[in-house]
Amino acid sequence: MVGGGFAGLRFCQKVDTSQFQVVLLDRHNYHTFQPLLYQVATAGLEPSSITGPLRKLFKKRKNFYFRLAEVEKVASEESCVYTSLGQLDYDHLVVANGAKTNYFGNEQNYEGAYPLKQVSQALSLRNSTLRCFEDALIVSDPEEKQALLNFVVVGGGPTGVEVSGAFSELKNNVLPNDYPELDFSKMKVYLVEGSPRLLNGMSDKSHTDAMKALKEMGVEVLLSTRVDSYRDGEIQFSDGNKMKAKTLVWAAGVTGNVIKGLESFSSAPSNRLAVNQQNLVKGTDNIYALGDIALMVTEEFPKGHPQLAPVAIQQADLLVKNLKRTNKGEELKSFEYRDKGSMATIGRNRAVVDLPKNLHFKGILAWFIWMFVHLMSIIGFRNKAVILFNWIWNYFTYDRSIRLILRARS
Amino acid sequence: MVGGGFAGLRFCQKVDTSQFQVVLLDRHNYHTFQPLLYQVATAGLEPSSITGPLRKLFKKRKNFYFRLAEVEKVASEESCVYTSLGQLDYDHLVVANGAKTNYFGNEQNYEGAYPLKQVSQALSLRNSTLRCFEDALIVSDPEEKQALLNFVVVGGGPTGVEVSGAFSELKNNVLPNDYPELDFSKMKVYLVEGSPRLLNGMSDKSHTDAMKALKEMGVEVLLSTRVDSYRDGEIQFSDGNKMKAKTLVWAAGVTGNVIKGLESFSSAPSNRLAVNQQNLVKGTDNIYALGDIALMVTEEFPKGHPQLAPVAIQQADLLVKNLKRTNKGEELKSFEYRDKGSMATIGRNRAVVDLPKNLHFKGILAWFIWMFVHLMSIIGFRNKAVILFNWIWNYFTYDRSIRLILRARS
Repeated sequence: MVGGGFAGLRFCQKVDTSQFQVVLLDRHNYHTFQPLLYQVATAGLEPSSITGPLRKLFKKRKNFYFRLAEVEKVASEESCVYTSLGQLDYDHLVVANGAKTNYFGNEQNYEGAYPLKQVSQALSLRNSTLRCFEDALIVSDPEEKQALLNFVVVGGGPTGVEVSGAFSELKNNVLPNDYPELDFSKMKVYLVEGSPRLLNGMSDKSHTDAMKALKEMGVEVLLSTRVDSYRDGEIQFSDGNKMKAKTLVWAAGVTGNVIKGLESFSSAPSNRLAVNQQNLVKGTDNIYALGDIALMVTEEFPKGHPQLAPVAIQQADLLVKNLKRTNKGEELKSFEYRDKGSMATIGRNRAVVDLPKNLHFKGILAWFIWMFVHLMSIIGFRNKAVILFNWIWNYFTYDRSIRLILRARS
Repeated sequence: MVGGGFAGLRFCQKVDTSQFQVVLLDRHNYHTFQPLLYQVATAGLEPSSITGPLRKLFKKRKNFYFRLAEVEKVASEESCVYTSLGQLDYDHLVVANGAKTNYFGNEQNYEGAYPLKQVSQALSLRNSTLRCFEDALIVSDPEEKQALLNFVVVGGGPTGVEVSGAFSELKNNVLPNDYPELDFSKMKVYLVEGSPRLLNGMSDKSHTDAMKALKEMGVEVLLSTRVDSYRDGEIQFSDGNKMKAKTLVWAAGVTGNVIKGLESFSSAPSNRLAVNQQNLVKGTDNIYALGDIALMVTEEFPKGHPQLAPVAIQQADLLVKNLKRTNKGEELKSFEYRDKGSMATIGRNRAVVDLPKNLHFKGILAWFIWMFVHLMSIIGFRNKAVILFNWIWNYFTYDRSIRLILRARS
């Protein structure tokens, strides 16, 4: 099992370890609840609240092993994985190492942009953001000062909407207390989306409501606009405009984290591993792919399923059952995605929720649904309690208590 | 005001800003509650629980400015401070930038040792400690494995006692669940002290009780022993013995953080700034030193006062009052240390407390006193609540939830 994300975690929790010996490989010793990473980045939550140490989660599991390791290569013809700790033979290989930030294949054009897929990246963004205001205090050149106060978020999906909303809350509620000497009307938050609408994949109503809420909160939304490059702190937009900004958050798409040795099974342009409806990687007979890395094309999803946690979890469940069925000689079942809806939060009392059957909620009710679903989904009672405490605290104090600029040395 | 530690914080909170314009300089944007740093290092608490963002603490203060800056030099003849942000003239300079880890002046002999004075150092120690067990799992050479499982703490003061106690709790209660494949009887915790007793500065009873408690918890205490060098992971003890250990925590003494330009006022060997009984640095007429950096020699304290938070706080209080007295033309008062007792915690239900008048407590009562005093001393209601929650949680679950190996990038 490669990867301790949503799919990997679910698979390891459910798989029958009396029938299979399971080795989980991950390069981190913790699972990350990615939907709340943006709150770590914007000083709302601590990393420990949205993560679960993998060893702790599986401490009661028999016939189960965790190894903190980078997977370097898969030799599919020998059924062997090469890792930073040595090699490991497998009968079945389950790949669920997710997706990584995609700069349209041109990483070198976007130097200094902040991706938001890992805890370490969220902490970097947090440190850098807070640092911007300290620097803005002492810079006298107006252009340089404005660059420090420009926050540009690229990508109008849920993450982009949530990050830009959170920046605007920092601007409106939190930071003016800290920096009475700064003029916060000069802090600008931009949300840049290449398509003509926000929250693609959600309903039109969600798009409209999110647009309205972001506008009320002071976020400038630039639709049908792309960021062509970001160099030396200067953004080149597709409409020819330029802007200097110290902070550019990249939430505009992902690409598969394809492991060496499996490239021949990945399909352009999304770089995901093509799988059949049982999540078996096409062209192999003992390698499975789950979640963001898997590309399962069906009639309903000709471009593959959305890269969301529920898909990953449901695919893991199916694989666990199909492995059992194989052992019993029963017929395998095919994956059918049960869409439970999608949602995005924008700020205090503001969110949008689409449920099946065209149900749509917005505003405070949607915000409560969003909070409830996320709180219930996160692992561990302790995390639930700590997050709830933080949310209540932040709500009533209009505060973020975690605004420390710090890093571990070496 | 240089330094936002106990003295700096107290001074800035109390000083009359209608009479003085105050500029606080610190290289961090937060105050650190150092007495609990060791719990951050041993995965018991999050950094945000033991710190307070300085801007937040002073957001209601008028005529007060905070600047995130390194102090590079003091030009006392020009009454000017040179910082990383530029220069600043002063009428009065208050230096309270504390002490830093002292390797007996031979830093190069102790490469790779972990000091424990800053949050970043505590996080490094935490990351490295957790990494040791991951590595111990996969190392086959027995000598190398033992080196990963040897934890050596140098210095038998409160910090050393607390860190070695916390390591032993990780060994006895927390980690065996995470690493069922490791034999934890091989994990060794050593506490090395150069003098013949622990907790110098506390009572003999405290020494005896601490020795007994540590022994019961499985810590090996080496008294009258020094660590002469630590190179390539090998410790050279003063008694001729050698030991390989991946983790060496240095809690064996501090030296003044003397700023360039003030060297001529510092006194060997402790490198503190010699001050008179009003905390005025000797040889100057407008530079004050408070707390760990100040060396005030009196009849009762011929080697200066202990480097403890209460001394720093009481000196700050006195200086605030003396500045007022100066303005009113009244006579200045001299510093008199009111010793409120000292204490050290060792582990679950174990602590030692010395109060004035030879009162001594140990065991669970002392442990409650220790917790109560620390909880009351830490700034902010939110921190109190979060720490209390964590302590209760850790106590009943025998757990540490914060065992993540992570760091901010760049």
